Amino acid sequence: MKKDVTGKSTDPAVRSLLEISHEKDYSTIWDRYEEQQPQCGFGSLGICCKICMQGPCRIDPFGENATRGACGADADLIVARNLLRSIAAGTSAHAGHAKHLAHILVKSGRGEYPDYPIKDAPKLKALAERLGIDTEDKNDQQLALAVGEAALDEFSEKESPNAWAATTIPAARAQKLTALEVVPSGIDSIISEIMHRTHYGNDADAVNLLLGGIKCSIADYSSCYMATELSDILFGTPQPVKTEANMGVLKENAVNIAVHGHNPALSDIIVQVASEMEEEAKQAGASEGIKLVGICCTGNEVLMRHGIPPITHSVSQEMAIVTGALEAVVVDYQCILPSLSNLAECYHTRLITTIATNKIKGAHHIEIDESNAREQAKKIIRTALEAYKERNPSLVNIPQNKNVTFAGFSTEAIINALSQVDGNDPLKPLLDHISAGNIQGVCLFAGCNNVKVTQDQNFITMAKELARNNILILATGCGGGAFARAGLMTPEATNEYAGEGLKSVLSAIGEAAGLGGPLPLILHIGSCVDNSRGVQIATALANKLEVDVDQLPLVASAPEATAEKAISIGTWAVAAGLPTHIGVVPPVLGSNTVTEVLTNKAAELTGGFFIVETDPGEASRKLLDVIKSRRQQLGI
Amino acid sequence: MKKDVTGKSTDPAVRSLLEISHEKDYSTIWDRYEEQQPQCGFGSLGICCKICMQGPCRIDPFGENATRGACGADADLIVARNLLRSIAAGTSAHAGHAKHLAHILVKSGRGEYPDYPIKDAPKLKALAERLGIDTEDKNDQQLALAVGEAALDEFSEKESPNAWAATTIPAARAQKLTALEVVPSGIDSIISEIMHRTHYGNDADAVNLLLGGIKCSIADYSSCYMATELSDILFGTPQPVKTEANMGVLKENAVNIAVHGHNPALSDIIVQVASEMEEEAKQAGASEGIKLVGICCTGNEVLMRHGIPPITHSVSQEMAIVTGALEAVVVDYQCILPSLSNLAECYHTRLITTIATNKIKGAHHIEIDESNAREQAKKIIRTALEAYKERNPSLVNIPQNKNVTFAGFSTEAIINALSQVDGNDPLKPLLDHISAGNIQGVCLFAGCNNVKVTQDQNFITMAKELARNNILILATGCGGGAFARAGLMTPEATNEYAGEGLKSVLSAIGEAAGLGGPLPLILHIGSCVDNSRGVQIATALANKLEVDVDQLPLVASAPEATAEKAISIGTWAVAAGLPTHIGVVPPVLGSNTVTEVLTNKAAELTGGFFIVETDPGEASRKLLDVIKSRRQQLGI
Repeated sequence: MKKDVTGKSTDPAVRSLLEISHEKDYSTIWDRYEEQQPQCGFGSLGICCKICMQGPCRIDPFGENATRGACGADADLIVARNLLRSIAAGTSAHAGHAKHLAHILVKSGRGEYPDYPIKDAPKLKALAERLGIDTEDKNDQQLALAVGEAALDEFSEKESPNAWAATTIPAARAQKLTALEVVPSGIDSIISEIMHRTHYGNDADAVNLLLGGIKCSIADYSSCYMATELSDILFGTPQPVKTEANMGVLKENAVNIAVHGHNPALSDIIVQVASEMEEEAKQAGASEGIKLVGICCTGNEVLMRHGIPPITHSVSQEMAIVTGALEAVVVDYQCILPSLSNLAECYHTRLITTIATNKIKGAHHIEIDESNAREQAKKIIRTALEAYKERNPSLVNIPQNKNVTFAGFSTEAIINALSQVDGNDPLKPLLDHISAGNIQGVCLFAGCNNVKVTQDQNFITMAKELARNNILILATGCGGGAFARAGLMTPEATNEYAGEGLKSVLSAIGEAAGLGGPLPLILHIGSCVDNSRGVQIATALANKLEVDVDQLPLVASAPEATAEKAISIGTWAVAAGLPTHIGVVPPVLGSNTVTEVLTNKAAELTGGFFIVETDPGEASRKLLDVIKSRRQQLGI
Repeated sequence: MKKDVTGKSTDPAVRSLLEISHEKDYSTIWDRYEEQQPQCGFGSLGICCKICMQGPCRIDPFGENATRGACGADADLIVARNLLRSIAAGTSAHAGHAKHLAHILVKSGRGEYPDYPIKDAPKLKALAERLGIDTEDKNDQQLALAVGEAALDEFSEKESPNAWAATTIPAARAQKLTALEVVPSGIDSIISEIMHRTHYGNDADAVNLLLGGIKCSIADYSSCYMATELSDILFGTPQPVKTEANMGVLKENAVNIAVHGHNPALSDIIVQVASEMEEEAKQAGASEGIKLVGICCTGNEVLMRHGIPPITHSVSQEMAIVTGALEAVVVDYQCILPSLSNLAECYHTRLITTIATNKIKGAHHIEIDESNAREQAKKIIRTALEAYKERNPSLVNIPQNKNVTFAGFSTEAIINALSQVDGNDPLKPLLDHISAGNIQGVCLFAGCNNVKVTQDQNFITMAKELARNNILILATGCGGGAFARAGLMTPEATNEYAGEGLKSVLSAIGEAAGLGGPLPLILHIGSCVDNSRGVQIATALANKLEVDVDQLPLVASAPEATAEKAISIGTWAVAAGLPTHIGVVPPVLGSNTVTEVLTNKAAELTGGFFIVETDPGEASRKLLDVIKSRRQQLGI
């Protein structure tokens, strides 16, 4: 029986490749998800505890049998502890990402990493000043060293609060979070503290734990913000670029190489090196040379800075291999399906891991120490060239789907576009339009795809509905990917989907910025760590209006969230004062207390709160209601 | 129907109090454990994954249905990731414990904590020298500051390996671990790294992950060692003490206060303050004043240094409240059952939490900032005095069971006893006896009680069997508690249970040390962080013989392990080269690869390995076999 693919993805390229997968009887994430049905109800509700070896324990959600685990932990405690460990894990991922870049910056400053010069010196200097580093008489290298060392200091416990958290949000917000005692000092130390607090026989007060979770999420925020800034400094601050997205960009006569994962540290070097190896690729028989493409957030990083086309994201990453036209998938870390290894074995595709702490069984491992980045990048590309010779043409199936997309909307790029309207006061036109109601509010779409949701459907349905209601939309991560592949990051989409007010604003800015048309309907602000750019913009608006973020008509949504990173990001979005939608039910419903705090009580503490809603139409309505209510409170 | 209590505990005091609990229909850990039956088989095998929101996923252990989670993770990967997170959590607990003490040492050095003077100045100086700190012209306070700061540095990533790990094990062992790349630099940073590696879509090589787990466990080892040393410096290095153990030490006419948890930071102050408040207690009506007692490892800390009697441990902690004679249970952190709060409500007992990150719903919270330790300790004791007035005599049931026990066998105390035999070369007599076979080997018993095991049964059965076979036994943690309550830490037990060789050695040392009889059958070396003392002794023996630890006839056992701390300790015991028995099945059997690495392959890497065996008789035989084989290899 032929399996139906329509419910799996809205992306026609993915659907066509999934049909091939089914014909060939490959195991894909959708197949494995089906095999997992029915999933455990205890785990889904968050009321399963595996924290000690007296367990596993589970709470009867009907309250008839076990209402406590062996140790006496009730549903509130079990759910809270599990949630905190997810926040700690999400934070650790962003901490690892940011620390990786901080190390590169230090070594760049010491002159040990010649492949990593400073690309945005003004941003480096501005950051140094914000951190209170004496910048006088320091050259770029010296500043890089000082900033890199200051960044590394952020991971350790110290007597001052985390500098990134303390210096990047409105003063009123910083005071509020300080009063709640949720501003951590060290990033790694708060992760360690959360793991300790959730150990057997420790913190047994769900509300106290949840405050700890918020504290940890602020460390996640700091890590994301640091990662964005250091990436911009090392690889350049993004400026608008035009390219194409989706599988159709793969070339039959090129060596196709995908970079996948999250960090630009290697992929940016691959971009440089690949352009120098065109001739070598042609000699290997690829008449069109090398075609670099991106998957997930590594893809977003090189899209934002170099216009490298993204081919697919998250839940559909396996399908990239099923094109049969991919010579190599080069991965760093995070969100890389272990199954890529099995699928690569069915093709000539080389799955190449590059980080010692992130190997995949069956993959080729070509390790990058940044001191040898260019050299190793060449080795990686040569591995792909070798693979090209083994490509089996009868297995090649490149879907023709692709769409034009714009990206590269860093905060600096957005301010620059706005300054074409008002050079003296770039934020003024934006605020005026918000005030006048041409723009009703701003929504940041973030987060993953999730196999439980038809790929991209929640993103696309919600974005169209919000745009129609004159909400300015920013996107990161797999959200950005969904919109890029769907052709929603174009001026044409603005004309087609934006409400009248929004359309007039995007058109005016686009014209003033000399784009010859409106800004895209949705602005791609980067990878998932670049959610920090969303806060940067929110903070600028709040500071300009002399209000706090929780008073502004701003919302966030992760409508297809999957990773623990999404949980930690969502938590800091709430801490930042944002109503934050999540379109997948997180494993917390087993506790009334936790659910109540996240969706309601949090608003009393931070002004932000979670909205859990799986229906995208309903979710849009809820976000629009919140925006309306915030506008009313602002008297606009 | 009357519930049977015989299978619950070997301790008659616990059994009698459990009968009262049943009569009164209290919910105890044994009742809740029964309500949890049957426990989830997937969780028990370690093949349930809750790491992303596409799950929960689980692997069919029969291989018929789902063999991979949605992302493609197989049983090996799922088990390895879960195990690593347990190791990270265990490590975080010891990290928090050690860091807490390092902070106190720093502030003591700065003169900010007058309640915390230096108690063991020679140990402070020796540690400073070992850490490479210039000790010349430094007074105790200056040394405390320097050592405290060096200790805090250990938690952060740095370019040198962790100093505690690097300076406390034999050089050959340090080289072996360095070659395996499993010596971490920072403690908190490796915890963070492990959480990152186990995040969705990261490290997907089970063996690579397990090496990461060993690396993290070395950070646990460093934390334990640091905690022991800093505790000795701040509160005094233990010397042999004689006291009594078990519930029978509670006094009907005293204000009975139990200290519970793991850290001596507060409990040591309570010991001091309580002795000053005897008069106040008498005025409150308690003719016998204040009776301080200990539970779990906080109990071990004050037992080791002050001879405070331990009344019960781990799984039976609730029973202490059921005596009806406990005015207060004062807790710091770790292994504190949340259910104490519910049970305390049935009595006049005040459950008092003292740490901001470790609250318990329903408990009284009297927070200790070490700058106000004495003052807060007084407040805590006065709370107990108030409670005494509310004690209901009809609810008082103090079991009469108690046994004499010795404790306080720090490494220094053991060396001191040995030096009475050979003042020039204290280790020589011990090694001679091992060589001659009077002592066949050494076993360190550690770890928790576990509700799945009749309390203390594995400890007692195994210890008697090993002692009969001339194994010298050391004990920490709840193991120490089990032996103390069972009367096995006495000269009489040596006469009764030791094999002839062991008896002659313990007698000779005891006589030489002027004890007028043999050393106790089992030497109490402290709390669970004090497993470090076991390594200190093993290292001294290995260095003296110029061999590595994995060549010596030394073994470890956690026959009733529960907490994640036990997993991290067990892992570093294996990394240290010890055959390490665990008497409860850890959640790893779902993976052949992980099981094989832990129980077999690890021996090739570190010389140590896990022995999983739930039957105490069989476990003893296996440990004796390993000791025999090591002796043969040494040619003794």
